[in-house]
Amino acid sequence: MADYVEGKRPVIEAMRTDVPLKKILMADNAKRDPMIQDILRKAKQRDIPVINVPRDELDQKSARGSHQGVMAETKPFPYVGLGDVVGAAETYAAEHDGRALVVLCDHITDAGNLGAIIRSAESVGASGLIIPNKRSARVEASTYKSSAGAVAHLLIAQTSNMTGAIERFKKNGFWACAATEHSSNEIWDVNLKGKILLVMGNEHDGVSRLVLENCDMAGRLPMMGQVSSLNVAQSATAIMYEWLRQNW
Amino acid sequence: MADYVEGKRPVIEAMRTDVPLKKILMADNAKRDPMIQDILRKAKQRDIPVINVPRDELDQKSARGSHQGVMAETKPFPYVGLGDVVGAAETYAAEHDGRALVVLCDHITDAGNLGAIIRSAESVGASGLIIPNKRSARVEASTYKSSAGAVAHLLIAQTSNMTGAIERFKKNGFWACAATEHSSNEIWDVNLKGKILLVMGNEHDGVSRLVLENCDMAGRLPMMGQVSSLNVAQSATAIMYEWLRQNW
Repeated sequence: MADYVEGKRPVIEAMRTDVPLKKILMADNAKRDPMIQDILRKAKQRDIPVINVPRDELDQKSARGSHQGVMAETKPFPYVGLGDVVGAAETYAAEHDGRALVVLCDHITDAGNLGAIIRSAESVGASGLIIPNKRSARVEASTYKSSAGAVAHLLIAQTSNMTGAIERFKKNGFWACAATEHSSNEIWDVNLKGKILLVMGNEHDGVSRLVLENCDMAGRLPMMGQVSSLNVAQSATAIMYEWLRQNW
Repeated sequence: MADYVEGKRPVIEAMRTDVPLKKILMADNAKRDPMIQDILRKAKQRDIPVINVPRDELDQKSARGSHQGVMAETKPFPYVGLGDVVGAAETYAAEHDGRALVVLCDHITDAGNLGAIIRSAESVGASGLIIPNKRSARVEASTYKSSAGAVAHLLIAQTSNMTGAIERFKKNGFWACAATEHSSNEIWDVNLKGKILLVMGNEHDGVSRLVLENCDMAGRLPMMGQVSSLNVAQSATAIMYEWLRQNW
């Protein structure tokens, strides 16, 4: 099913943040106001086809009823297979003294968190990211902004089988490390040298039991405050840099 | 000047996230719909006075014209003095083998970033946060949500003189460390043991020249990707945990 960005400002924002767009649909009675003119100009610069359609068609395609006479259809995100991520990690490891990092997100549900994790993963030199194909945030138009464009530079695979994915990486010489506050090991006491599959859990429930059982090891970031909670993207960033530190 | 939260949903959200409210102003002709009933019920539970006023008065106080007949006046945030932060850090250091962390934000402008830094600072056990009193994000109603409530548990001081504040901490035995991508030192090669004043820079320009010159040392998080940018709150979190690791 196609994904649409709807409304004048969102369509301009999508082009500004380099969301890959297949085409722009414009109501044949859309007012030629300055924002519509801006959309037409930017679409031309980017070679994005603009198609005039009856307003009814937009009404039917619209999920929120806020299209204001314009919608953009996004290109499907080019998810890769697990094998592609394994291959990229092997190549990276060969060039970087045997270190590689892949992040597996165990049902992260907030799109902003996923985008922030993608941004940090790309910054630290991760070879890819694995997400479930159900009950999980996935790459959407907003991810281009929330990841500051990094989503276009990171291999992302979807899987229907989280434990199978973990097994696959383990068979390829990765150590699977879960980030969980229930661990008694501080993350810096965990050996993160070499090829690591970092497993981050859901915002509310953390890493699920079955996934945790399939990991080789676990570590936590100590919580020293009274509120004692860290956003999952913040946690992921701190742990990814700990991986880089140990492998530097 | 008083700060107001305006509109039905925002006022409910402010109460849900424990924003300290002085009073709620309600238009005398506000419709008694379910959301207004909810506001009245929650205000009663929390002992927040509800005052009926002419709708004109709300129109005048409203910054956005979106009050929907209800506005909440927030209590001013209880900023502390620099001396209070120094004192709290000394007490913390005495109880924690001489370690203490204070974060100085050199003109962070995004309120969400400031909230996220506050959340991580509280999680890592920082003794306080210093922000400029001009051209900077400050604590507002949204900070209670973006910091996940941590803002109520962290000492925050405003200053008109950033370099003076740095000098004050240095005189009290702190080492001032700037986080900057222009440093040639990886942050984990910088000695962060003991009492550290961590200086984080503005989203666009980083740490300003004058502030940087007043720091004792500087470190960077290596950027290994093609996009090569990390959000300032993500950077701050990774560095704060590196401080904790070195002092563990």
